[in-house]
Amino acid sequence: MEGPSPSAAPRPMGLSYAVGASQLLGLAVLAVVGAWMGHFRGGLAWESPQLQFNVHPLCMILGMVFLQGDALLVYRIFRTESKRATKVLHGLLHVLALLVALVGLVAVFQYHKKMGFPDLYSLHSWCGLLAFAFYIVQWLMGLGAFLFPGASSSLRSRYKPQHAFFGAALFLLSIATALLGILELLLFKIKDRYSAFVPEGLLGNALGLLLVAFGALLGYILTREEWRRPLQGEEMALSMDFKKLAEEEEEGGGSPVDPR
Amino acid sequence: MEGPSPSAAPRPMGLSYAVGASQLLGLAVLAVVGAWMGHFRGGLAWESPQLQFNVHPLCMILGMVFLQGDALLVYRIFRTESKRATKVLHGLLHVLALLVALVGLVAVFQYHKKMGFPDLYSLHSWCGLLAFAFYIVQWLMGLGAFLFPGASSSLRSRYKPQHAFFGAALFLLSIATALLGILELLLFKIKDRYSAFVPEGLLGNALGLLLVAFGALLGYILTREEWRRPLQGEEMALSMDFKKLAEEEEEGGGSPVDPR
Repeated sequence: MEGPSPSAAPRPMGLSYAVGASQLLGLAVLAVVGAWMGHFRGGLAWESPQLQFNVHPLCMILGMVFLQGDALLVYRIFRTESKRATKVLHGLLHVLALLVALVGLVAVFQYHKKMGFPDLYSLHSWCGLLAFAFYIVQWLMGLGAFLFPGASSSLRSRYKPQHAFFGAALFLLSIATALLGILELLLFKIKDRYSAFVPEGLLGNALGLLLVAFGALLGYILTREEWRRPLQGEEMALSMDFKKLAEEEEEGGGSPVDPR
Repeated sequence: MEGPSPSAAPRPMGLSYAVGASQLLGLAVLAVVGAWMGHFRGGLAWESPQLQFNVHPLCMILGMVFLQGDALLVYRIFRTESKRATKVLHGLLHVLALLVALVGLVAVFQYHKKMGFPDLYSLHSWCGLLAFAFYIVQWLMGLGAFLFPGASSSLRSRYKPQHAFFGAALFLLSIATALLGILELLLFKIKDRYSAFVPEGLLGNALGLLLVAFGALLGYILTREEWRRPLQGEEMALSMDFKKLAEEEEEGGGSPVDPR
């Protein structure tokens, strides 16, 4: 908030460690879900219904948790690269996340169809549908506001905090949906043994805690005021212009107050 | 950030509507869990094991979701009252939340004991244990740092953003735990009928979506920069002193940068 704004400020040390830890946690999440599907659930295959189902948890966690989470981190990691290149990377990681998640959705719907199971009745599926549908809407709105040349910088400045809030909310909803999916799978597959603390149950619970830790660490990184991306030269000038405009518009009371 | 800081600034209109909507959502959550336990699960009673269990969802949602959430809102609602009175209300609401949740925990452990069911094997219980244990730790640390007179204002200023982050994280973990509890209860009690879209399943799912909406709206209110509590006269002076101190300490680079 205060102090000079050197555009070549070094990346804060704490941020580097936190990002490194988040990537280790994310890889641990992927390793554990892979081990669960590989060791306890018979592995992956598109042709066999049971093994096709196993594609679902793996793809949803890779897409809706790991890749979606990393897309949120790009502005913290790439601090001095051009704003446009960083935005494009952010958008591309989200596209990749959506495509991987789509494969995971096709897998579970085909599995249900082959087995004659009904779709979309559980709380897991309702939360997942909500997260996926709003994720597409959020991506399209981000594309329209920040990558298409038509949007005014005033619109961008107004929409940016909303976009950031809903992005974080969708990421957290995706993690909650993953937790519901883990519990649902354990209660469907090992219900009678779950309460005997069998290894598969413990592995599923551990996966849940790793997901909670991944979500909490990403939330921490994204909300540290001092870890936000410093403004580059041109953005700074634009931001000052907008600040002046906003102050003129707000003249006469009700202006935002620095709460610190 | 910019503009004057009138300590008698009116409450922003948008904040009043958002707080009102959050309270309606919270009451709707309580009404739905009450209807679920009353209409579909036979009501509440401490002596009958089955009906004693029903105390658990009601108390956990009242304590760990509604009261915990409202405790986070007090600094947004009481904007011109003394800082100390607002802090005490914040701490008291959290104590009330903890006590109500404790009744809910006793209910479920006694139910398990009477029925001969094992404790603490499911992901719901692991997340719940984590949330409750850290909630006590967070409360004690808040008491030590902000209500005991011994803590220095430098320590308070450093710890405050950590306290706020972990408070919000525990609130969201509590909501995720509630979603897991809803799914677990539905799969235990109406597993075979859940996929036929019976009313109890739809009510449980609707409760889950209401909880997601309550969490999202509170998250939105708490993260709006312009809705934070304005500093009062004396705090402002203290804050300026600390700001100066912090700037002196940081002299020589790496200082935080305004990202806007």
